[in-house]
Amino acid sequence: MRETTGEQVGTNVSDTALRGFVGYNMKRAFNAVQADLTRTLAPHGLRMITYSVLALVVENPRLRPSALAKALTVERANLVVYVDQLEQAGWVTRTPSSTDRRAYALQATLEGQQVYARAMAAVRDHDQRMLGALDPSDVAVVNKALATIEAQGRSL
Amino acid sequence: MRETTGEQVGTNVSDTALRGFVGYNMKRAFNAVQADLTRTLAPHGLRMITYSVLALVVENPRLRPSALAKALTVERANLVVYVDQLEQAGWVTRTPSSTDRRAYALQATLEGQQVYARAMAAVRDHDQRMLGALDPSDVAVVNKALATIEAQGRSL
Repeated sequence: MRETTGEQVGTNVSDTALRGFVGYNMKRAFNAVQADLTRTLAPHGLRMITYSVLALVVENPRLRPSALAKALTVERANLVVYVDQLEQAGWVTRTPSSTDRRAYALQATLEGQQVYARAMAAVRDHDQRMLGALDPSDVAVVNKALATIEAQGRSL
Repeated sequence: MRETTGEQVGTNVSDTALRGFVGYNMKRAFNAVQADLTRTLAPHGLRMITYSVLALVVENPRLRPSALAKALTVERANLVVYVDQLEQAGWVTRTPSSTDRRAYALQATLEGQQVYARAMAAVRDHDQRMLGALDPSDVAVVNKALATIEAQGRSL
């Protein structure tokens, strides 16, 4: 027989107050996405952040590190580490800028583009897995709402 | 006259491929929420995680640290640090468990409850600020979708 002591045990913890905030729900859902995405990317030698960096380098030829850091809202010092990892893997190269001797631009190698294409296919499967139970029309509402919240943040 | 060199400058970085994934949109929106929430909580002496810990301790009398760590999906070692901070502030106390000599339960002090109430009012304003431009019906769709994604993550 189980004693009832008035103490919370196991996972029966109530978080009703926090659930009233979209930020908390977003964090909880993102934790789930992050866990599955991390598993998805590992076999491709990528993490969430290096995948994002590679995606932007592939999509934006001759991308400047400063623009990349700004686009991903990461510190320049941290970005250097991610770019180093991608360069060491042979997926991204730093090429001198044509307009500024001190600057350089980023370019994906052919291998980098191939790794990215394979990883993107896996990420697409992951995305479908996470969204599987949702109506496409609800997904559209969610994406639009997230963009509105992001824009709201920029305006504050 | 501005030279056109084919190099990306400023913020004109295209992230179309990443925008196709709800996880990326969620991360971007959450960054915006996190920045505003951090500013919102600072005057109350709280951070996002210590606010969440305090909220659950207030809502769940005699909460066990193990249940709290599980509910927030944080490591026990990290949780101890957050609880220490709240205890040092005089907002949470550790009281011996009535059933297990080695265990203890968490309890919010009166001051902790008052700090939480004031912080919650500020978080409510923050939530309204972030969601201001959205229809209430869209917010409902978003919260339901986020819960579905979170549940999907647990099932993987």
